[in-house]
Amino acid sequence: MKIAIAGLGTVGGEVLRQLLANASRYEKWAGGSIKVVAVSARDRRKDRGVDLRKSGIRWFSDPVTMARSADAQVVVELIGGADGIARRVVETAIACGRHVVTANKALLAHHGMELARLAEMRQVTIAFEAAVAGGIPVIEVLRQGLAVNRLNQVVGILNGTTNFILTEMWRTGRGFSEVLKEAQQRGYAEADPTLDVSGMDAAHKLAILSSLGFGVQIDLAGVHVEGIQHITAQDITFARELGFRVKLLAIARMTEYGLEQRVHPCMVPEGREIAKVDDVLNAVAIQGEPVGTIMLQGRGAGAGPTASAVLADITDLVTGRRLPAFVLPAHKLRAASRRAMGDHTGEYYLRFMVADEPGVLHQLTGALAAQGVSVAQVIQRGRTSSGAVPLMFITASAKEAAVQRALRMIAELPSVVEKPCLIRIERGV
Amino acid sequence: MKIAIAGLGTVGGEVLRQLLANASRYEKWAGGSIKVVAVSARDRRKDRGVDLRKSGIRWFSDPVTMARSADAQVVVELIGGADGIARRVVETAIACGRHVVTANKALLAHHGMELARLAEMRQVTIAFEAAVAGGIPVIEVLRQGLAVNRLNQVVGILNGTTNFILTEMWRTGRGFSEVLKEAQQRGYAEADPTLDVSGMDAAHKLAILSSLGFGVQIDLAGVHVEGIQHITAQDITFARELGFRVKLLAIARMTEYGLEQRVHPCMVPEGREIAKVDDVLNAVAIQGEPVGTIMLQGRGAGAGPTASAVLADITDLVTGRRLPAFVLPAHKLRAASRRAMGDHTGEYYLRFMVADEPGVLHQLTGALAAQGVSVAQVIQRGRTSSGAVPLMFITASAKEAAVQRALRMIAELPSVVEKPCLIRIERGV
Repeated sequence: MKIAIAGLGTVGGEVLRQLLANASRYEKWAGGSIKVVAVSARDRRKDRGVDLRKSGIRWFSDPVTMARSADAQVVVELIGGADGIARRVVETAIACGRHVVTANKALLAHHGMELARLAEMRQVTIAFEAAVAGGIPVIEVLRQGLAVNRLNQVVGILNGTTNFILTEMWRTGRGFSEVLKEAQQRGYAEADPTLDVSGMDAAHKLAILSSLGFGVQIDLAGVHVEGIQHITAQDITFARELGFRVKLLAIARMTEYGLEQRVHPCMVPEGREIAKVDDVLNAVAIQGEPVGTIMLQGRGAGAGPTASAVLADITDLVTGRRLPAFVLPAHKLRAASRRAMGDHTGEYYLRFMVADEPGVLHQLTGALAAQGVSVAQVIQRGRTSSGAVPLMFITASAKEAAVQRALRMIAELPSVVEKPCLIRIERGV
Repeated sequence: MKIAIAGLGTVGGEVLRQLLANASRYEKWAGGSIKVVAVSARDRRKDRGVDLRKSGIRWFSDPVTMARSADAQVVVELIGGADGIARRVVETAIACGRHVVTANKALLAHHGMELARLAEMRQVTIAFEAAVAGGIPVIEVLRQGLAVNRLNQVVGILNGTTNFILTEMWRTGRGFSEVLKEAQQRGYAEADPTLDVSGMDAAHKLAILSSLGFGVQIDLAGVHVEGIQHITAQDITFARELGFRVKLLAIARMTEYGLEQRVHPCMVPEGREIAKVDDVLNAVAIQGEPVGTIMLQGRGAGAGPTASAVLADITDLVTGRRLPAFVLPAHKLRAASRRAMGDHTGEYYLRFMVADEPGVLHQLTGALAAQGVSVAQVIQRGRTSSGAVPLMFITASAKEAAVQRALRMIAELPSVVEKPCLIRIERGV
């Protein structure tokens, strides 16, 4: 099997080094030959610990040209990005009848269905174990598990950056911005952290897992996404007092009202397995019948774990395994109806910063009562340095639409000095 | 694919019900037909929620006869036990050219190599995802992972009964016997709990995982096994004070001195992922290069999880996947040299019950010093109701042989009133 690699960054470089160092071992297990024949990257002179000239690998300055004309059966795409070059590389490789191995979750979340159809037409495979949760073989486990289990729910901590930030805020009591800076210094967050902290990276991965877990088309636009930028040290303190951990969860559930897909911060009872997953770790909990709940965890990013997943896909191709990208052929995947977020029912943590004036608590409870939202618990704290007072409610089980209406009313009250913070309480994860 | 099931207990009954209820779904995923044609169990009249006569399934009162003469390509063995009927069923099925799916870890740990050789001779497959950690697909993950990773270490909590007991002792401060009784009442422990609490059940599973993880022959006799019967409430209290959790770990490590396989109680720093796995949950942490560490957890027993694993093996056979039982053909598995337990080096928790007399501490420290074992920490508590005094040492890193020599000397001192308790401290798991 001849391999061409597009993109020699952290992951691509590691894949290349591993393939050159261990090809004979992989060949022993996979029962076929594996040979890197071409690579393409931005900077030819960068030191990657490999002498490309000596190893007889052809260099392409343009990865699309490589995808078209390299003498390879497999093109490994490790450039990244939903559109642009990565997409052209993958489309070109497929059009030329080459298998594709990729770690590109954005590309799959946006164009996965179309790419799967193209691949089936050309009778090639798209493999993407590395796209979700790095070295954790969650794609493989879902593929296998589906055959004999009816899944109810997939819940993941799918972004290591945000899990590190939330863990560190909980451990140290520091605020979001300060911890984000530390994450950037430690290399856990990018210079522009938007994709991670906004929840969008996790949403890309969830859209892929939903498709595999429930046998439906990818529906990225159907994912409700909220990030963690608005979580304050005060929220973490309240959570601790209430026996919760705050986690950015990605949740997909098949309900009688349709498919529910959401990524947002959650309060999770601290004894739950997924609440104990800390630092940069990722985890995926799969719940189905008859298997019950199984959880997989590990590092979701980094050269080693991601390269391991890429290499597993390559050896799988060498063994001759040929599976449709999303378990079923693309034309057999039905479009799932969406469950509207407004129909979500659960308990809510609501935190307001209010002026220290008489009657404020009465105004807020009035707005909640007007929407039929019952309050289960209230905590009011002393004045902060800004002069505002934190006021926290836990609601009884309520409908999201009603809670959001109450929040909009409350946000407009003159005594409310900051945008309210809403965190959903999740006990069933 | 025609299936015969030997053994219709909790798991066998569930497998039968699932196969009858969901055959069409499995067939859709696996791309082939699945039909139960024969069953065998002790009691024909027991209500299993299935009308056997209606469903046209042939009943055999003798499972060995069924393995020989049923018109089936697959025999599912769910009788259990290392020898006796289960073994004869499996040997007969293989001899008659039928594939075997089994959940029988004792059988595999004792006779796995021989059965693998027989199966290869007859060109049939033995599949046993259900033998280790129930619904957690650890066998599949090891098979896949091996192709591209060099494993260093496999660490598991492989027995739910003992994990429940240790968790409950930690939670409630109660003693071993009292919690064991509760476990029996809740159905988490058998009437005769020896196989579980002695560590032997975990040892069976570890022997299987070692073979898969390191590509070596199964070597059950090479597993060092200790149970949890001697752990007291006092030990759990000391552990808590020191920031440890006590867990019965199964550890396999490939070292330059040979394969290390051991099952015994460990003190694990409470922040470690595997220390957080509680109640009846099982977990397996796999550490390798380049993947890093991934951990899988879930219920390791029970009808649903175990049936799920059996069904996954059956559908895998239907898809035509044919793998050697232990990844490599049996004749290619090398015999690993054993690393002697005496060569183990680490920190030790040592707890003694001593008479409250002058000079006792001096005698004990003398014995440790005589063997070159350095003490890192000592705690002496007040007199207990029995009049004895608990005395606890944490050693600096020491060699097991030296520690054991010191313990033998100490155990013979007249002032030492109970068998000493040794628990190894494991920081690298």
